[in-house]
Amino acid sequence: MTKRLGYLGPAGSYAEQAATVYDKNSEKAPYPSIPTVAKAVENREVSAGLVPIENSLEGAVTYTLDLLIHDSKLLISDEIVLPIHHNLLVSPGTTKQDIEVVYSHPQALAQCRKYLENELPGVELIAALSTSAAVKLLEKERKAAAIGTIRAAEIYAAEIIDSQIEDKANNVTRFVLLSENDSEPTGNDKTSICFTFDDDAPGLLYTVMGSIAKEGINLAKVESRPNKLELGRYFFLLDLEGHRTEPKLSRTLSTISSEVSELKILGSYPQHS
Amino acid sequence: MTKRLGYLGPAGSYAEQAATVYDKNSEKAPYPSIPTVAKAVENREVSAGLVPIENSLEGAVTYTLDLLIHDSKLLISDEIVLPIHHNLLVSPGTTKQDIEVVYSHPQALAQCRKYLENELPGVELIAALSTSAAVKLLEKERKAAAIGTIRAAEIYAAEIIDSQIEDKANNVTRFVLLSENDSEPTGNDKTSICFTFDDDAPGLLYTVMGSIAKEGINLAKVESRPNKLELGRYFFLLDLEGHRTEPKLSRTLSTISSEVSELKILGSYPQHS
Repeated sequence: MTKRLGYLGPAGSYAEQAATVYDKNSEKAPYPSIPTVAKAVENREVSAGLVPIENSLEGAVTYTLDLLIHDSKLLISDEIVLPIHHNLLVSPGTTKQDIEVVYSHPQALAQCRKYLENELPGVELIAALSTSAAVKLLEKERKAAAIGTIRAAEIYAAEIIDSQIEDKANNVTRFVLLSENDSEPTGNDKTSICFTFDDDAPGLLYTVMGSIAKEGINLAKVESRPNKLELGRYFFLLDLEGHRTEPKLSRTLSTISSEVSELKILGSYPQHS
Repeated sequence: MTKRLGYLGPAGSYAEQAATVYDKNSEKAPYPSIPTVAKAVENREVSAGLVPIENSLEGAVTYTLDLLIHDSKLLISDEIVLPIHHNLLVSPGTTKQDIEVVYSHPQALAQCRKYLENELPGVELIAALSTSAAVKLLEKERKAAAIGTIRAAEIYAAEIIDSQIEDKANNVTRFVLLSENDSEPTGNDKTSICFTFDDDAPGLLYTVMGSIAKEGINLAKVESRPNKLELGRYFFLLDLEGHRTEPKLSRTLSTISSEVSELKILGSYPQHS
Protein backbone atom coordinates (compact mmCIF):
# COMPACT_ATOMS: atom_id res chain seq x y z
CA MET A 1 0.00 0.00 0.00
CA THR A 2 2.67 2.47 1.03
CA LYS A 3 4.45 3.60 -2.11
CA ARG A 4 7.15 5.89 -0.76
CA LEU A 5 8.07 6.02 2.88
CA GLY A 6 9.72 9.02 4.54
CA TYR A 7 11.82 8.49 7.68
CA LEU A 8 13.96 10.38 10.15
CA GLY A 9 17.34 10.17 8.44
CA PRO A 10 20.05 10.27 7.49
CA ALA A 11 20.44 6.91 5.73
CA GLY A 12 21.71 4.38 8.22
CA SER A 13 19.57 5.65 11.11
CA TYR A 14 17.50 3.45 13.40
CA ALA A 15 14.39 4.92 11.76
CA GLU A 16 15.63 3.57 8.40
CA GLN A 17 15.94 0.13 10.02
CA ALA A 18 12.40 0.45 11.34
CA ALA A 19 11.19 1.53 7.88
CA THR A 20 12.79 -1.56 6.35
CA VAL A 21 11.19 -3.82 8.98
CA TYR A 22 7.85 -2.11 8.31
CA ASP A 23 7.94 -2.41 4.53
CA LYS A 24 10.92 -3.99 2.87
CA ASN A 25 9.85 -3.19 -0.68
CA SER A 26 8.75 0.42 -0.65
CA GLU A 27 11.05 3.21 -1.74
CA LYS A 28 12.52 5.05 1.30
CA ALA A 29 13.34 8.74 1.61
CA PRO A 30 15.36 10.22 4.51
CA TYR A 31 14.48 13.64 5.99
CA PRO A 32 16.73 15.62 8.33
CA SER A 33 14.29 16.16 11.22
CA ILE A 34 10.97 15.05 12.66
CA PRO A 35 9.13 18.20 11.40
CA THR A 36 10.50 17.73 7.85
CA VAL A 37 9.29 14.09 7.80
CA ALA A 38 5.81 15.39 8.71
CA LYS A 39 6.01 18.18 6.12
CA ALA A 40 6.89 15.64 3.40
CA VAL A 41 3.74 13.65 4.23
CA GLU A 42 1.64 16.82 4.24
CA ASN A 43 3.09 17.83 0.83
CA ARG A 44 2.51 14.29 -0.45
CA GLU A 45 6.18 13.82 -1.35
CA VAL A 46 5.80 10.54 0.56
CA SER A 47 2.70 8.55 1.41
CA ALA A 48 3.68 8.12 5.07
CA GLY A 49 6.50 9.04 7.43
CA LEU A 50 8.21 7.03 10.15
CA VAL A 51 9.44 8.79 13.32
CA PRO A 52 10.43 7.56 16.80
CA ILE A 53 7.95 8.28 19.60
CA GLU A 54 9.28 6.40 22.65
CA ASN A 55 12.37 4.53 23.86
CA SER A 56 12.32 2.01 26.70
CA LEU A 57 15.30 3.70 28.44
CA GLU A 58 15.02 7.37 27.47
CA GLY A 59 11.25 7.75 27.47
CA ALA A 60 9.15 9.90 25.15
CA VAL A 61 10.58 11.51 22.03
CA THR A 62 9.24 14.93 22.91
CA TYR A 63 9.69 16.40 19.40
CA THR A 64 7.24 13.84 18.04
CA LEU A 65 4.72 14.38 20.84
CA ASP A 66 4.88 18.17 20.46
CA LEU A 67 4.48 17.88 16.69
CA LEU A 68 1.34 15.74 17.11
CA ILE A 69 -0.08 18.06 19.80
CA HIS A 70 0.70 21.47 18.32
CA ASP A 71 1.95 21.47 14.76
CA SER A 72 0.37 18.81 12.56
CA LYS A 73 -2.94 17.35 11.47
CA LEU A 74 -1.36 14.05 10.50
CA LEU A 75 -2.60 10.88 12.18
CA ILE A 76 -0.82 7.83 13.54
CA SER A 77 -1.68 4.95 11.20
CA ASP A 78 0.65 2.26 12.59
CA GLU A 79 3.38 1.51 15.13
CA ILE A 80 6.63 -0.47 14.87
CA VAL A 81 8.73 -1.62 17.83
CA LEU A 82 12.43 -2.09 17.07
CA PRO A 83 15.14 -3.53 19.36
CA ILE A 84 18.07 -1.10 19.39
CA HIS A 85 21.55 -2.60 19.11
CA HIS A 86 24.54 -0.27 19.13
CA ASN A 87 27.84 -1.10 17.41
CA LEU A 88 31.34 0.36 17.71
CA LEU A 89 32.52 1.37 14.23
CA VAL A 90 35.91 2.55 12.93
CA SER A 91 37.67 3.25 9.63
CA PRO A 92 39.02 -0.01 8.17
CA GLY A 93 42.39 -0.71 9.76
CA THR A 94 41.85 1.33 12.92
CA THR A 95 42.24 -0.79 16.08
CA LYS A 96 40.77 -0.28 19.53
CA GLN A 97 44.19 0.96 20.73
CA ASP A 98 44.18 3.75 18.13
CA ILE A 99 40.89 5.25 19.27
CA GLU A 100 41.21 8.68 20.90
CA VAL A 101 37.66 9.95 20.41
CA VAL A 102 34.19 8.42 20.07
CA TYR A 103 31.43 10.22 18.19
CA SER A 104 27.72 9.55 18.45
CA HIS A 105 24.32 10.97 19.24
CA PRO A 106 24.27 11.88 22.97
CA GLN A 107 21.59 9.21 23.68
CA ALA A 108 23.72 6.47 22.08
CA LEU A 109 26.79 7.63 24.05
CA ALA A 110 24.70 7.54 27.24
CA GLN A 111 23.34 4.07 26.44
CA CYS A 112 26.86 2.63 26.03
CA ARG A 113 28.44 4.47 28.97
CA LYS A 114 29.57 1.38 30.88
CA TYR A 115 30.98 -0.30 27.76
CA LEU A 116 32.95 2.88 26.95
CA GLU A 117 34.27 3.19 30.51
CA ASN A 118 35.43 -0.44 30.51
CA GLU A 119 36.71 -0.83 26.96
CA LEU A 120 37.90 2.68 26.11
CA PRO A 121 38.71 4.41 29.41
CA GLY A 122 39.77 8.05 29.10
CA VAL A 123 38.67 8.35 25.50
CA GLU A 124 36.99 11.65 24.59
CA LEU A 125 33.25 11.46 23.85
CA ILE A 126 31.88 13.96 21.34
CA ALA A 127 28.22 14.55 20.52
CA ALA A 128 27.05 14.29 16.90
CA LEU A 129 23.66 15.23 15.47
CA SER A 130 22.82 11.58 14.68
CA THR A 131 24.48 8.19 14.87
CA SER A 132 24.82 8.24 11.06
CA ALA A 133 26.47 11.68 11.09
CA ALA A 134 28.92 10.25 13.64
CA VAL A 135 29.78 7.30 11.38
CA LYS A 136 30.25 9.64 8.40
CA LEU A 137 32.94 11.51 10.39
CA LEU A 138 35.06 8.33 10.31
CA GLU A 139 35.69 8.89 6.59
CA LYS A 140 38.05 11.73 7.59
CA GLU A 141 39.30 10.53 10.97
CA ARG A 142 41.54 7.54 11.63
CA LYS A 143 41.89 7.81 15.41
CA ALA A 144 38.17 7.90 16.00
CA ALA A 145 35.28 5.50 16.51
CA ALA A 146 31.53 5.99 16.21
CA ILE A 147 28.52 4.28 17.73
CA GLY A 148 25.95 3.44 15.07
CA THR A 149 23.94 0.90 13.12
CA ILE A 150 25.13 -2.01 10.99
CA ARG A 151 23.49 -0.26 8.04
CA ALA A 152 25.58 2.91 8.67
CA ALA A 153 28.70 0.73 8.65
CA GLU A 154 27.68 -0.53 5.18
CA ILE A 155 26.88 2.94 3.83
CA TYR A 156 30.09 4.60 5.03
CA ALA A 157 32.34 1.53 4.57
CA ALA A 158 33.18 1.40 8.25
CA GLU A 159 34.34 -1.65 10.17
CA ILE A 160 32.41 -3.09 13.12
CA ILE A 161 34.77 -3.68 16.09
CA ASP A 162 32.14 -4.68 18.65
CA SER A 163 28.39 -5.23 18.39
CA GLN A 164 25.53 -5.02 20.89
CA ILE A 165 27.59 -2.69 23.07
CA GLU A 166 24.52 -1.15 24.79
CA ASP A 167 24.61 -1.35 28.61
CA LYS A 168 21.06 -2.63 28.98
CA ALA A 169 19.62 -5.45 26.92
CA ASN A 170 16.04 -4.16 26.86
CA ASN A 171 16.69 -1.16 24.63
CA VAL A 172 13.67 -0.87 22.38
CA THR A 173 12.28 2.07 20.38
CA ARG A 174 8.67 2.46 19.32
CA PHE A 175 8.19 4.25 15.98
CA VAL A 176 4.91 5.58 14.59
CA LEU A 177 3.82 5.94 11.00
CA LEU A 178 2.37 9.40 10.27
CA SER A 179 -0.21 9.57 7.48
CA GLU A 180 -3.10 11.68 6.22
CA ASN A 181 -5.51 8.99 7.46
CA ASP A 182 -5.37 6.52 10.29
CA SER A 183 -6.13 2.79 9.94
CA GLU A 184 -9.27 0.72 9.48
CA PRO A 185 -10.31 -1.42 12.48
CA THR A 186 -8.52 -4.77 12.75
CA GLY A 187 -10.04 -6.00 16.02
CA ASN A 188 -6.81 -5.36 17.94
CA ASP A 189 -6.31 -1.62 17.82
CA LYS A 190 -5.12 1.27 19.89
CA THR A 191 -6.22 4.91 19.81
CA SER A 192 -3.95 7.80 20.79
CA ILE A 193 -5.52 11.03 22.02
CA CYS A 194 -4.35 14.25 23.64
CA PHE A 195 -6.23 16.92 25.53
CA THR A 196 -5.81 19.91 27.78
CA PHE A 197 -7.87 21.78 30.37
CA ASP A 198 -8.40 25.47 31.00
CA ASP A 199 -7.43 25.01 34.63
CA ASP A 200 -6.72 22.58 37.50
CA ALA A 201 -5.46 20.02 35.02
CA PRO A 202 -4.35 17.08 37.17
CA GLY A 203 -7.63 17.01 39.15
CA LEU A 204 -9.61 16.97 35.91
CA LEU A 205 -7.36 14.22 34.55
CA TYR A 206 -8.86 12.04 37.27
CA THR A 207 -12.36 12.80 35.89
CA VAL A 208 -11.30 11.78 32.38
CA MET A 209 -9.67 8.59 33.67
CA GLY A 210 -12.93 7.85 35.46
CA SER A 211 -14.90 8.12 32.22
CA ILE A 212 -12.47 5.68 30.61
CA ALA A 213 -12.59 3.24 33.54
CA LYS A 214 -16.43 3.35 33.65
CA GLU A 215 -16.59 1.97 30.09
CA GLY A 216 -14.04 -0.72 30.94
CA ILE A 217 -11.57 0.63 28.42
CA ASN A 218 -7.97 -0.32 29.04
CA LEU A 219 -5.61 2.62 29.35
CA ALA A 220 -2.24 1.68 27.86
CA LYS A 221 -0.29 4.89 28.50
CA VAL A 222 -0.41 8.30 30.16
CA GLU A 223 2.10 11.01 29.29
CA SER A 224 2.18 14.75 29.97
CA ARG A 225 3.75 17.59 27.98
CA PRO A 226 3.90 21.30 28.80
CA ASN A 227 1.20 23.34 27.04
CA LYS A 228 4.01 25.87 26.28
CA LEU A 229 1.92 28.76 27.60
CA GLU A 230 2.41 28.47 31.33
CA LEU A 231 4.54 26.39 33.73
CA GLY A 232 2.36 23.76 35.40
CA ARG A 233 -0.18 23.57 32.54
CA TYR A 234 -0.06 20.39 30.49
CA PHE A 235 -1.34 18.46 27.53
CA PHE A 236 -2.02 14.84 28.47
CA LEU A 237 -1.45 12.07 25.94
CA LEU A 238 -3.34 8.81 26.46
CA ASP A 239 -3.26 5.53 24.54
CA LEU A 240 -6.57 3.66 24.79
CA GLU A 241 -7.21 0.09 23.70
CA GLY A 242 -9.72 -0.15 20.87
CA HIS A 243 -10.55 1.63 17.61
CA ARG A 244 -12.18 5.07 17.70
CA THR A 245 -15.07 3.76 15.56
CA GLU A 246 -15.98 1.01 18.08
CA PRO A 247 -19.19 2.05 19.95
CA LYS A 248 -17.67 1.87 23.45
CA LEU A 249 -14.64 3.97 22.59
CA SER A 250 -16.58 6.35 20.39
CA ARG A 251 -18.98 6.99 23.30
CA THR A 252 -16.06 7.54 25.70
CA LEU A 253 -14.36 9.98 23.33
CA SER A 254 -17.48 12.08 23.14
CA THR A 255 -17.72 12.10 26.96
CA ILE A 256 -14.06 13.12 27.23
CA SER A 257 -14.59 15.86 24.68
CA SER A 258 -17.17 17.42 27.04
CA GLU A 259 -14.77 17.17 30.02
CA VAL A 260 -11.71 18.84 28.48
CA SER A 261 -11.14 22.20 26.81
CA GLU A 262 -9.43 20.73 23.74
CA LEU A 263 -9.41 17.11 22.53
CA LYS A 264 -7.37 15.91 19.56
CA ILE A 265 -7.63 12.34 18.30
CA LEU A 266 -4.18 11.35 17.08
CA GLY A 267 -5.31 8.19 15.30
CA SER A 268 -6.44 4.56 15.62
CA TYR A 269 -4.02 1.89 14.46
CA PRO A 270 -3.18 -1.83 14.88
CA GLN A 271 -1.61 -2.59 18.24
CA HIS A 272 1.92 -3.95 18.18
CA SER A 273 1.78 -7.41 19.73
CA MET B 1 21.56 27.86 56.48
CA THR B 2 23.08 26.57 53.26
CA LYS B 3 26.84 26.99 53.53
CA ARG B 4 28.06 25.79 50.15
CA LEU B 5 25.73 25.30 47.22
CA GLY B 6 26.49 22.97 44.32
CA TYR B 7 24.87 23.65 40.92
CA LEU B 8 24.79 22.32 37.39
CA GLY B 9 27.68 24.27 35.84
CA PRO B 10 29.78 25.49 34.32
CA ALA B 11 29.92 29.00 35.80
CA GLY B 12 27.57 31.26 33.88
CA SER B 13 24.83 28.63 33.51
CA TYR B 14 21.15 29.25 34.19
CA ALA B 15 21.50 27.00 37.25
CA GLU B 16 24.14 29.41 38.62
CA GLN B 17 21.63 32.25 38.13
CA ALA B 18 19.02 30.22 40.00
CA ALA B 19 21.55 29.50 42.79
CA THR B 20 22.23 33.23 43.15
CA VAL B 21 18.51 34.01 43.29
CA TYR B 22 18.08 31.27 45.87
CA ASP B 23 20.93 32.35 48.14
CA LYS B 24 23.02 35.35 47.19
CA ASN B 25 25.57 34.96 49.98
CA SER B 26 26.50 31.28 50.05
CA GLU B 27 29.59 30.00 48.31
CA LYS B 28 28.70 28.33 44.96
CA ALA B 29 30.39 25.34 43.34
CA PRO B 30 29.76 24.24 39.73
CA TYR B 31 29.59 20.53 38.78
CA PRO B 32 29.69 19.22 35.22
CA SER B 33 26.52 17.11 35.24
CA ILE B 34 23.33 16.42 37.18
CA PRO B 35 24.71 13.14 38.68
CA THR B 36 27.91 14.88 39.86
CA VAL B 37 25.86 17.60 41.60
CA ALA B 38 24.00 14.83 43.46
CA LYS B 39 27.24 12.99 44.25
CA ALA B 40 28.72 16.18 45.75
CA VAL B 41 25.74 16.47 48.10
CA GLU B 42 26.00 12.78 49.05
CA ASN B 43 29.75 13.21 49.75
CA ARG B 44 29.01 16.41 51.73
CA GLU B 45 31.29 18.50 49.54
CA VAL B 46 28.28 20.84 49.40
CA SER B 47 25.30 21.15 51.70
CA ALA B 48 22.77 21.15 48.85
CA GLY B 49 22.71 20.99 45.05
CA LEU B 50 20.62 22.90 42.53
CA VAL B 51 19.49 21.18 39.31
CA PRO B 52 16.78 21.94 36.72
CA ILE B 53 13.72 19.70 36.79
CA GLU B 54 11.24 21.24 34.34
CA ASN B 55 11.04 23.92 31.64
CA SER B 56 7.79 25.52 30.52
CA LEU B 57 8.58 24.89 26.82
CA GLU B 58 10.70 21.72 26.82
CA GLY B 59 9.02 19.80 29.63
CA ALA B 60 10.69 17.55 32.18
CA VAL B 61 14.46 17.38 32.61
CA THR B 62 14.53 13.62 32.39
CA TYR B 63 18.06 13.25 33.84
CA THR B 64 16.88 14.80 37.09
CA LEU B 65 13.71 12.69 37.22
CA ASP B 66 15.64 9.48 36.53
CA LEU B 67 18.23 10.37 39.18
CA LEU B 68 15.49 10.88 41.77
CA ILE B 69 13.69 7.67 40.76
CA HIS B 70 16.62 5.28 40.34
CA ASP B 71 19.97 6.58 41.51
CA SER B 72 19.79 8.73 44.60
CA LYS B 73 18.39 8.89 48.10
CA LEU B 74 18.57 12.68 48.18
CA LEU B 75 15.39 14.60 48.82
CA ILE B 76 13.94 17.75 47.29
CA SER B 77 14.13 20.46 49.96
CA ASP B 78 13.09 23.50 47.92
CA GLU B 79 12.16 24.75 44.45
CA ILE B 80 13.13 27.90 42.53
CA VAL B 81 11.37 29.15 39.40
CA LEU B 82 13.59 31.25 37.10
CA PRO B 83 12.52 33.15 33.95
CA ILE B 84 14.93 32.21 31.15
CA HIS B 85 16.21 35.05 28.97
CA HIS B 86 18.63 34.24 26.16
CA ASN B 87 21.22 36.70 24.85
CA LEU B 88 23.29 36.80 21.66
CA LEU B 89 26.96 37.16 22.64
CA VAL B 90 30.09 37.80 20.56
CA SER B 91 33.76 38.61 21.06
CA PRO B 92 34.20 42.36 21.59
CA GLY B 93 34.34 44.05 18.20
CA THR B 94 32.48 41.35 16.28
CA THR B 95 29.37 42.72 14.53
CA LYS B 96 26.19 40.94 13.48
CA GLN B 97 27.44 41.01 9.86
CA ASP B 98 30.61 39.09 10.82
CA ILE B 99 28.75 36.14 12.33
CA GLU B 100 29.07 32.89 10.36
CA VAL B 101 28.24 30.40 13.08
CA VAL B 102 26.18 30.38 16.30
CA TYR B 103 27.02 28.03 19.17
CA SER B 104 24.74 27.02 22.00
CA HIS B 105 23.06 24.19 23.82
CA PRO B 106 20.54 22.58 21.41
CA GLN B 107 17.60 23.67 23.61
CA ALA B 108 18.73 27.30 23.55
CA LEU B 109 19.19 27.15 19.75
CA ALA B 110 15.69 25.68 19.44
CA GLN B 111 14.20 28.33 21.74
CA CYS B 112 15.64 31.16 19.60
CA ARG B 113 14.90 29.59 16.21
CA LYS B 114 12.71 32.41 14.86
CA TYR B 115 15.11 35.12 16.04
CA LEU B 116 18.01 33.30 14.31
CA GLU B 117 16.03 32.83 11.08
CA ASN B 118 15.09 36.52 10.98
CA GLU B 119 18.28 38.15 12.23
CA LEU B 120 20.97 35.72 11.07
CA PRO B 121 19.54 33.82 8.08
CA GLY B 122 21.80 31.13 6.64
CA VAL B 123 24.17 31.16 9.60
CA GLU B 124 25.40 27.73 10.73
CA LEU B 125 24.06 26.49 14.08
CA ILE B 126 26.37 24.24 16.11
CA ALA B 127 25.46 22.37 19.28
CA ALA B 128 27.57 22.88 22.43
CA LEU B 129 27.39 20.94 25.68
CA SER B 130 26.09 23.98 27.59
CA THR B 131 25.35 27.64 26.95
CA SER B 132 28.48 28.53 28.97
CA ALA B 133 30.68 26.19 26.94
CA ALA B 134 29.34 27.93 23.82
CA VAL B 135 30.26 31.38 25.18
CA LYS B 136 33.75 30.13 26.11
CA LEU B 137 34.31 29.19 22.42
CA LEU B 138 34.09 32.90 21.54
CA GLU B 139 37.47 33.47 23.17
CA LYS B 140 39.04 31.73 20.16
CA GLU B 141 36.55 32.56 17.41
CA ARG B 142 35.90 36.00 15.96
CA LYS B 143 33.27 35.10 13.35
CA ALA B 144 31.04 33.36 15.81
CA ALA B 145 28.26 34.16 18.25
CA ALA B 146 26.86 32.23 21.20
CA ILE B 147 23.52 32.16 22.96
CA GLY B 148 23.96 32.39 26.73
CA THR B 149 23.42 34.24 29.98
CA ILE B 150 24.45 37.77 30.98
CA ARG B 151 26.65 36.16 33.63
CA ALA B 152 28.49 34.09 30.99
CA ALA B 153 29.12 37.32 29.06
CA GLU B 154 30.77 38.75 32.20
CA ILE B 155 32.85 35.63 32.88
CA TYR B 156 34.18 35.25 29.34
CA ALA B 157 34.35 38.99 28.57
CA ALA B 158 31.87 38.66 25.72
CA GLU B 159 29.70 41.44 24.33
CA ILE B 160 25.89 41.27 24.34
CA ILE B 161 24.52 42.14 20.89
CA ASP B 162 20.85 41.38 21.57
CA SER B 163 19.02 40.37 24.72
CA GLN B 164 15.77 38.48 25.37
CA ILE B 165 16.05 36.79 21.97
CA GLU B 166 13.89 33.80 22.96
CA ASP B 167 10.91 33.21 20.63
CA LYS B 168 8.37 32.78 23.42
CA ALA B 169 8.08 35.11 26.38
CA ASN B 170 6.92 32.47 28.85
CA ASN B 171 10.20 30.58 29.05
CA VAL B 172 10.59 29.55 32.67
CA THR B 173 12.67 26.79 34.31
CA ARG B 174 11.90 25.20 37.65
CA PHE B 175 14.98 24.11 39.64
CA VAL B 176 14.98 21.90 42.73
CA LEU B 177 17.38 21.89 45.64
CA LEU B 178 18.66 18.37 46.45
CA SER B 179 19.63 17.74 50.09
CA GLU B 180 20.04 14.95 52.60
CA ASN B 181 16.82 16.08 54.30
CA ASP B 182 13.69 17.74 53.02
CA SER B 183 12.04 20.79 54.62
CA GLU B 184 10.03 21.43 57.75
CA PRO B 185 6.34 22.26 57.21
CA THR B 186 5.62 25.92 56.37
CA GLY B 187 1.85 25.68 55.87
CA ASN B 188 2.21 26.05 52.08
CA ASP B 189 4.08 22.96 50.97
CA LYS B 190 4.25 20.43 48.18
CA THR B 191 5.28 16.78 48.31
CA SER B 192 6.82 14.94 45.34
CA ILE B 193 6.43 11.17 45.13
CA CYS B 194 7.09 8.46 42.57
CA PHE B 195 5.81 4.91 42.30
CA THR B 196 5.50 1.96 39.98
CA PHE B 197 3.29 -1.11 39.62
CA ASP B 198 4.03 -4.72 38.86
CA ASP B 199 1.50 -4.68 36.06
CA ASP B 200 -1.35 -2.86 34.28
CA ALA B 201 0.12 0.45 35.36
CA PRO B 202 -2.21 3.06 33.84
CA GLY B 203 -5.35 1.36 35.21
CA LEU B 204 -3.82 1.27 38.68
CA LEU B 205 -2.80 4.91 38.35
CA TYR B 206 -6.53 5.66 38.35
CA THR B 207 -6.86 3.83 41.69
CA VAL B 208 -4.05 5.92 43.20
CA MET B 209 -5.55 9.14 41.85
CA GLY B 210 -8.84 8.07 43.45
CA SER B 211 -7.18 7.71 46.86
CA ILE B 212 -5.78 11.21 46.47
CA ALA B 213 -9.09 12.70 45.33
CA LYS B 214 -11.00 11.01 48.18
CA GLU B 215 -8.90 12.91 50.75
CA GLY B 216 -9.43 16.16 48.85
CA ILE B 217 -5.72 16.53 48.17
CA ASN B 218 -4.82 18.72 45.24
CA LEU B 219 -2.71 17.02 42.61
CA ALA B 220 -0.31 19.56 41.09
CA LYS B 221 1.46 17.38 38.53
CA VAL B 222 1.52 13.95 36.89
CA GLU B 223 4.54 12.77 34.89
CA SER B 224 5.58 9.35 33.62
CA ARG B 225 9.06 7.92 33.01
CA PRO B 226 10.03 4.52 31.62
CA ASN B 227 10.91 1.97 34.32
CA LYS B 228 13.90 1.04 32.08
CA LEU B 229 13.05 -2.65 32.27
CA GLU B 230 10.29 -2.99 29.71
CA LEU B 231 8.64 -0.79 27.07
CA GLY B 232 5.21 0.28 28.30
CA ARG B 233 6.08 0.03 32.03
CA TYR B 234 6.41 3.32 33.84
CA PHE B 235 7.27 5.13 37.02
CA PHE B 236 4.74 7.85 37.75
CA LEU B 237 5.81 11.09 39.42
CA LEU B 238 3.15 13.08 41.25
CA ASP B 239 3.32 16.43 43.05
CA LEU B 240 0.76 16.68 45.84
CA GLU B 241 -0.18 19.80 47.76
CA GLY B 242 0.69 19.59 51.46
CA HIS B 243 3.52 18.37 53.66
CA ARG B 244 4.07 14.63 54.14
CA THR B 245 3.76 15.08 57.93
CA GLU B 246 0.25 16.60 57.69
CA PRO B 247 -2.31 13.96 58.81
CA LYS B 248 -4.36 13.99 55.58
CA LEU B 249 -1.34 13.56 53.33
CA SER B 250 0.38 11.13 55.66
CA ARG B 251 -2.77 8.94 55.59
CA THR B 252 -2.97 9.14 51.80
CA LEU B 253 0.69 8.19 51.38
CA SER B 254 0.18 5.08 53.45
CA THR B 255 -2.87 4.14 51.34
CA ILE B 256 -0.88 4.69 48.14
CA SER B 257 1.95 2.59 49.49
CA SER B 258 -0.47 -0.36 49.73
CA GLU B 259 -1.70 0.21 46.14
CA VAL B 260 1.67 0.32 44.36
CA SER B 261 4.61 -2.05 44.20
CA GLU B 262 7.21 0.60 45.04
CA LEU B 263 6.66 4.06 46.53
CA LYS B 264 9.44 6.61 46.98
CA ILE B 265 8.82 9.94 48.71
CA LEU B 266 11.02 12.50 46.99
CA GLY B 267 10.53 15.22 49.60
CA SER B 268 8.25 17.89 51.05
CA TYR B 269 9.23 21.51 50.46
CA PRO B 270 7.78 25.04 50.37
CA GLN B 271 5.65 25.65 47.31
CA HIS B 272 6.87 28.35 44.91
CA SER B 273 4.15 31.00 44.83
